[in-house]
Formats: sequence, structure tokens, C-alpha cells
Amino acid sequence: MTLQQLRAAFIPKIPRQLTQLTKLIAHDSSFLSSNSELEKLFPHLINQAMIRFVNGTEQSLKKSMTVGILFSGGQAAGGHNVVTGLFDALKTLHPDCKVIGFKNGPSGLVNNQAMELTAPLLDSYRNQGGFDLIGSGRTKIETDTQFAQSLKTVQKQGLDGLVIVGGDDSNTNAAFLAEYFLTHQCSTKVIGVPKTIDGDLKNEFIEISFGFDTAAKTYAEIIGNIMRDALSAKKYYYFIKLMGRTASHLTLECALKTHPNVVLIGEEVAEKKQSLKQLVVEIADVIEKRSKNGKDYGVILIPEGIVEFVPEFKQLISELNHLLAQDITEVEQNLSDASKAGFKDLPESLKNQLLEDRDPHGNVQVSKIETERLFIYLVEEELKKRNSKSKLSAQPLFCGYEGRSAYPSNFDAQYCYALGMTAALLLNAGKTGYMACIQRLTAQVEDWEIGGVPLIGMMVFETRKGKQKAVIQKALVDTKSAVFQEFSKKRAAWALEDDYLFPGPIQFFGPSELTDSVPVILQSNFNTK
Amino acid sequence: MTLQQLRAAFIPKIPRQLTQLTKLIAHDSSFLSSNSELEKLFPHLINQAMIRFVNGTEQSLKKSMTVGILFSGGQAAGGHNVVTGLFDALKTLHPDCKVIGFKNGPSGLVNNQAMELTAPLLDSYRNQGGFDLIGSGRTKIETDTQFAQSLKTVQKQGLDGLVIVGGDDSNTNAAFLAEYFLTHQCSTKVIGVPKTIDGDLKNEFIEISFGFDTAAKTYAEIIGNIMRDALSAKKYYYFIKLMGRTASHLTLECALKTHPNVVLIGEEVAEKKQSLKQLVVEIADVIEKRSKNGKDYGVILIPEGIVEFVPEFKQLISELNHLLAQDITEVEQNLSDASKAGFKDLPESLKNQLLEDRDPHGNVQVSKIETERLFIYLVEEELKKRNSKSKLSAQPLFCGYEGRSAYPSNFDAQYCYALGMTAALLLNAGKTGYMACIQRLTAQVEDWEIGGVPLIGMMVFETRKGKQKAVIQKALVDTKSAVFQEFSKKRAAWALEDDYLFPGPIQFFGPSELTDSVPVILQSNFNTK
Repeated sequence: MTLQQLRAAFIPKIPRQLTQLTKLIAHDSSFLSSNSELEKLFPHLINQAMIRFVNGTEQSLKKSMTVGILFSGGQAAGGHNVVTGLFDALKTLHPDCKVIGFKNGPSGLVNNQAMELTAPLLDSYRNQGGFDLIGSGRTKIETDTQFAQSLKTVQKQGLDGLVIVGGDDSNTNAAFLAEYFLTHQCSTKVIGVPKTIDGDLKNEFIEISFGFDTAAKTYAEIIGNIMRDALSAKKYYYFIKLMGRTASHLTLECALKTHPNVVLIGEEVAEKKQSLKQLVVEIADVIEKRSKNGKDYGVILIPEGIVEFVPEFKQLISELNHLLAQDITEVEQNLSDASKAGFKDLPESLKNQLLEDRDPHGNVQVSKIETERLFIYLVEEELKKRNSKSKLSAQPLFCGYEGRSAYPSNFDAQYCYALGMTAALLLNAGKTGYMACIQRLTAQVEDWEIGGVPLIGMMVFETRKGKQKAVIQKALVDTKSAVFQEFSKKRAAWALEDDYLFPGPIQFFGPSELTDSVPVILQSNFNTK
Repeated sequence: MTLQQLRAAFIPKIPRQLTQLTKLIAHDSSFLSSNSELEKLFPHLINQAMIRFVNGTEQSLKKSMTVGILFSGGQAAGGHNVVTGLFDALKTLHPDCKVIGFKNGPSGLVNNQAMELTAPLLDSYRNQGGFDLIGSGRTKIETDTQFAQSLKTVQKQGLDGLVIVGGDDSNTNAAFLAEYFLTHQCSTKVIGVPKTIDGDLKNEFIEISFGFDTAAKTYAEIIGNIMRDALSAKKYYYFIKLMGRTASHLTLECALKTHPNVVLIGEEVAEKKQSLKQLVVEIADVIEKRSKNGKDYGVILIPEGIVEFVPEFKQLISELNHLLAQDITEVEQNLSDASKAGFKDLPESLKNQLLEDRDPHGNVQVSKIETERLFIYLVEEELKKRNSKSKLSAQPLFCGYEGRSAYPSNFDAQYCYALGMTAALLLNAGKTGYMACIQRLTAQVEDWEIGGVPLIGMMVFETRKGKQKAVIQKALVDTKSAVFQEFSKKRAAWALEDDYLFPGPIQFFGPSELTDSVPVILQSNFNTK
């Protein structure tokens, strides 16, 4: 048997509550305080309460439901288990329930491209990575036409419910869709599921999004291996870029799992208003100190989005976007003095990229900047300028796509299965505009608590493109949190000593402390050793 | 308990023969035919036989021995287990035996930088990745002074034996060292151990080198994850470069484990005298065909050393080296017409690198060429030239250092432990100039056969830098082998269908067919499904 087959046969543990699915009754717990601005946008959804499920007596089975599901945005490990959890729970509630998958993301909903998901088909996708069962996509449902077409689709498909698996934007969208359906007397209920490897969809209700644990474990495996390599050959500095553009949770989690010599955290850089130069000086200082101790090797973690946290770089990008939009040819000369100075120090290849490589809207493509190479270049230049005797032989590395479509860890597999089941229960209870919510995730799976949180209960107003918009807020790394403070206390020692940890590959068999471990940043009483 | 601790506690299975260590008697099996040229170089080592071990009666324990060990060259998973196997076997043979580790590779031997390896120290390195217990290095023992200094070191340390863990070059060196010690009436015996993730140290005696299995499994995990990602998002072509400069075994093994859309094998390219252009056309053809089937995604495997197999590129490099050595400034104009044409088609960044980035001998640094990016550039150009409608959104990826310092798979952990024990037995039997040798590796560990093969029995004469040199021959991929034929038969289907496999991370617990699997290319009756 291959791991592929063995994982397909794995049966996720489920929360105790979910073992008596048909007896559960949805129960309004605390109501959320209402907000008059939100009330204008969501007149139907405004007065919702947090949902808990309590044990009742065996319900008469509900009528059969037809439920659609779609994936929105980048892959995250466990997505297929949301589908199987949903399917299994619906079939337990009523054997005639049907699940429809929309293909390639929200565009499948807009264009009514769908397929029925049957038991034999799903069996080979249980506990598997990726979203390939139905695919995903980045279409945003924004225009009136798109909303109208979505409504048409759910009516055509006769959907009782629609489950949207996505990040903060997609779940914001789910709320608008739920409201739209209610406004148009459409009975289709909408439930969101929190997905994103970046870990930035979390709040007082949602402890973590799914996919984060698997991505962090996959990257930590690679980082640990690389640390062994650095320690063995004693000649390379590895500059490792990690996925996570808006928030540095993944980098922080991987740092706590492996203890690198230098770790950049975007949120801290922004808070301290650190310049690129300062970051480079910081890295060069560590390299020189280690060199004096006879160590010309090390491991440096850099979050993908770091440059966007550096105020001066953000400014430079904004000026470039502005100038490029006007088709000004002598871009460099038209920059502000500060930006001109910053631009001058960049490597030629990056200058060219900034000037030439634009997205369809004419903007600089920040996500394409190879930050790990940028830092190698800048640190090399800095050491040259210092006439440093330290030897820097640097290797760039990007921990990216391999982490988001990996086999889900048991944590993600079980979390997602429970999320899918909870989505089914919320639909069965006639709820709409909710996100499936599992709490007490650091406890045994059996003790996890299931519920639903109103999507608009997580919303705030943000200025986007000059307009006030209601959105689900992204959670950034909190530099005042216990986890960050612990990291902050230890990193000086990590810089000079080789306190590396080697987490190794994700294990699916063996002691449960290994197979069922939860993210470090989730543990209030966390232990990094 | 962490995986790090759990692996340290893992007890490798050992071949049945090794359970009765103290009863084993070395036995000359077949003698190798002698070669008069080799006889001149190795007058003392020339008449050696393959060694087998047979059960005798309990031996009187031998006198205590002091044995040195060193790692030579790049990391490979399992190195620490060679040390623990050696240590445990020596201690079983005589409790007063001592093991000395030479630091940072052969230079530790030349300069007598050593440390005693004790039981408590070794305990935390059992079944761990990397070579960090004592480090490794790439110094070659070549000069008379180096040989003399090595002799001095082994005498000063009072070594009865010296174990050299390395690839083909290091083991060639071990033979010269063994001969040198004999010539100088030094009683230190030399035993080699076959190490290299590239898998090119193998022959009729050595079935595979250690580290290959773990590297292949680590890369296959990443490739499988990436395939899931390609299949889910349906928008990227991943150009994945794999370690392996001289031989493409790792690429072939990973291909059989995952079924990519295109796989380049260096040896085949050389045999068919394929040009860079032909390879690019081949890839572009697959991309266009897939695009017509609605598939604008895929995975392409490229061995690190591919450009050195392309005749025209080899020629270009050779001309560049020649011109650069003469400090000719107008290099491009002085190339032959064929090379000029080839050079012209390269991206600017690579042209600059070829002209400017030289090693200490003034040669072009072929190993620094980012082949995955070169192919992306050339394929993009090719599609442009064709006015192709295929969308190519390409992502480069390098499977490298994370594979050579990973936790050894059970196969490598057990293979290395047995190699270390066998090295102890060969030394105990007074053998020198041998390589520890484990055969029947596809059988149960219990049934593995242990022995020793004369190092010079694996040697041939090769022209290196214009001189005939005796070397252990590198094993290249044999395009006539059953394994290659099977691959060759299947790849047309892999190109167009998505027949991807997802091996997932190495498992250390669970069903033994998973935890103890052996490389596909080792299995004569292999099964790629």
C-alpha cells in the first residue's frame, strides 16, 4: 500500500459532539453588538448570534438537501476533507442529500460549471492534499452581473446551501452573497469555511485557518534539513523565503519550530519603521559576529511580503506605480530623493523588474520580487563596504508551493473534516451568513467545540482604493503576544549559537504527540523545545 | 517526544549475519582478475579477493582497536549511522575499542584534527541526518606532503584502522592511502564506505550508495506536492531542477516515483547527441499539446548537470574556458560559429555569468548555472517564435540541499548501520583497501549479505586532464536497463495525461512496506504504481 492509499483509508477523529449528529440542536448563544454602518449593508444578517450546538433528542430526519461547495484562492491542505466532512454529515442527516462541486473556484458558481460529488469519487480524495477534486480559482464575485448569475446558478441547481471555502476576502464575499440571496428571496443558505496557509484569518472566534499547520510543518521540515546541511558543511548561508505576503505568521511558527539565526517579521519591521538598510545591517552584523566565532554558515528566514512592510520600499513602489501609470519614461529621475536613493542601491535585475514587469493593471508586481535574492545581494554589498573578513557564500531558497498542496497533517485533516460536518449542521439548522467554527483546538479532538460565527461579526471597515469597505479583518502578527515575546527573548541566543531544531517530515503513524501536534502559535502555554 | 528524540531511540534492524558478530570469520571468495597497469600502482593490494563472512565458533576476542573515521564530500543521509554501526560493532568485538572522528573531512586527517567519539556523544546522533557530528570537507589527499602528513596522523593516533566515507573519488583515494600505508610499513588498515546521494557509485558489487534513497524520497515528496498544486490551480508549469551533476539517477528515480510530464535524462541526451534546441522543442511540443487539451500546467524534471550532457553546450563551455584562460577580451567574437550561435540564444544573465563568474582555476562555473531558469527562458522564447497560443506561466524550483541532510529513511539508516558494522568486521579481519559491501538490498534486512570488495577491483583507467588515471568508475544511467526501458515506454502517456503520483513525506512508523521501502531503480521486478 502507498501512503496515498493509506491516507485515503484514514478515518479522522471527530469531536464528541459530532458523534451524535442527528441529535444536535442549534442554539443561539451570545448576540453580537450591532453596528449601524453594517446594518445598512446587511439588513437581513445584522441580528445574528454565535451558534452553539446542544444535545437534544433524536430529530426526525430533515428533508434531503442539495448543497454546493467551492474553493476560492490558493490551495491549503485539508480542503478535500471539508468536502468529505460535509458529504458524510449530510448523508447521515438524510441519505438523499446531494453535494455539488463548483469547478475552478467562484467562476464555477458564476458560470454554473458544476459536477455532482459522489461517494466513490470522494473516497480517493479523503485526506489528500490540494484542491484538485474540483479545482480552485481567484475570481471575485463583485459586479451586479456576477451576483445575479450566482443567484441564477444556485436556483438552477436547486441548492439549499452553498459552502464557500476561502480566506478573508472570500468569506467577506460569502457574507455579501448570503445577504444578496436573502434580499432576492432565494432560500439558499451560505456558509463560509476559514482557509489560508498564511494564518491571517483568525480572531476571537476563529483560532486558526486550515492549511497553516501543514504548510508550517512542511516548511519546518525543509528548514530543519537545511540547518543540518549548514551545520555539516559549515560553508553556506541559506536565505530562505517563506510564503506569507500580508502576515508573517508562517515565518514566526517556523522560527519557533527550528530556531534560525536571523528571522525577519514583517509586522515588527513596520512597527519599528525599519529601513531595508537597517535590516541588511542587522543581518550583516550577525554574519560578522558568527564569523568571529568561526561560523561562516547559518540560516535566515524571510517572509515573502517583507518588502511591503518596509516603509521606504512601500513608498518607492507607490511612486513607481504612480509614474508608470502616467507612462513617464524617465522614471528614475522623477522619483523623490528618498526613493531615488533606495532605488539606486538595488541590484540591476530588480531595477529592471520593477520598471518592466507589471501586472494587468500596470502595477509593479511585488509578489514577483525574489526577496531572498535581494537580501543576499544587499548583504553582500554591505559586507564589501565594510571590508568585512566574513565569508558569505549564500544560497537562496523559497519555501512555497510544496507547502500548500501537501498531504494534510492529522490536525488539518481532522480540523477540516469537522469544519465540513459543522457546515452541514449549520445548513441543516437553516443558518446563513455564518462561518463554521471549531474551538478549543489545542485540546483532544474529542473535546473540540463546534459552532457557527456570524460572518459580519468579524467585519470591520477598511479604506480600500479610497473607499470605506466592510471586510473581514486580516490578523497580523501581534508583537505584544506571549508567543512573540518568547521568540523575541530567545532570538539573540539563536543568532550566535546553533540552537537548531530538526522537526523532520510530517508523520501520520506513531505516537500521537507527533502525529496530532498543533501549531506552536496556538498553544498559549507553548514550549519551543 | 519529538521526532528528533524518537529517531535517536530507533534501533536499526540488522542482517542476520551481524547478530553473531563475534563468530564471523572473513573468507576469501572469488579473486579478481589482475591488471598489470593496476599492479604497478598497487603492488601490495593487487591480489585481493572479494570477502564473505562465514559463521565460525565464538572467536577469542581480538585485541582492542583504535579506529579513525572521516566524511568526505557532500552530505548524504545516514552518515552518522556508519559511525554508530562501526562503534557498536567494535565495542561488541572488544569493549576497549576506541573510535576517533576526524573533523571537517580529509583535512582533519592531514592536519590531525580529531576527537574521540564516545557512547554518550553518539547517542544523540543515532539515525540523525547530516554529517555534523564531525563535519565533512572536500580536501583531496593528492600531494606527497598530504600523504606523508596523513601517515603521521594515523601513527600519532595509533590507529589500527581508518574508515573513509565518501564517493568515487574519495574511495579511489582510500585505495591509494591503503597502498601508501602498506608501502611505508604502517599497519593502519583503510576501509571505504560508499556514499553519495547522486547514486553514481555502484557496480556489480555495490548495489547502491547510501543517501540516494533518502534524497530521492525527499525530492519525490516535494515533486508530488507540487503536482497536486499544479493540478489544483491549473495555471503553472513547474520546472524542477534536481541534484545530480554527473549522473541522472536521482531524476530517473523521482520520475518513476511521481510520473512528471517531461523528464530530461542527461545520459540519454548525450547518447542521442541532442542539442539544447531539441530539448527545448521537445518541452514546447508537450506544452502545446497539453494546452490543446485544455491543460496549461505541468511538471518538468531537469537534472542539475543536464547542460554538461548537451554536446554543443559542452563545446561552448570548453571554448569559453580556453578563451578566458588566455585573457582574451572579445570572447564572443572568438567562439566557433556553432558556439557563437548557441551563445547568442542564451539569456543575458547567463551570458554574463558564463563570462564573469569563474572558479579559482579561471573556469566557467557550470554548477552555478540555474538550469531550471535557463529552460524556462528558452522555452518561453521558443513559444514566442511559434506564435503559440499556449499559456506558459512558469515557476522555477530546485530540489537540492534539503535532500542530502534529511533524516535518513529506514533503508538508509539500516544500510549505513550495517555498512559501519561491516567496516568494523573487515578491520577486525585485518583487511585493507576494501570497501564495505552489503548485497541483496531488496530482500528483508535480515537477509542482507555482508562482505568486502577490493577497492581496486572497481577501478578503471580514465583520461583526466590529459593523463591516464586509475579511478573508481562512476555509474551513469544505463538507457538499456529494464528500469529505463520501462520509463521510456511510459513517458509518452505521462506527458499528456495527469498520471501523477503523490508519495508524500518519509514515514518512520506504520506499515513496513511504507517505512522500509527501497529505491525503485534497485528493484529488478519494479513496480511504479
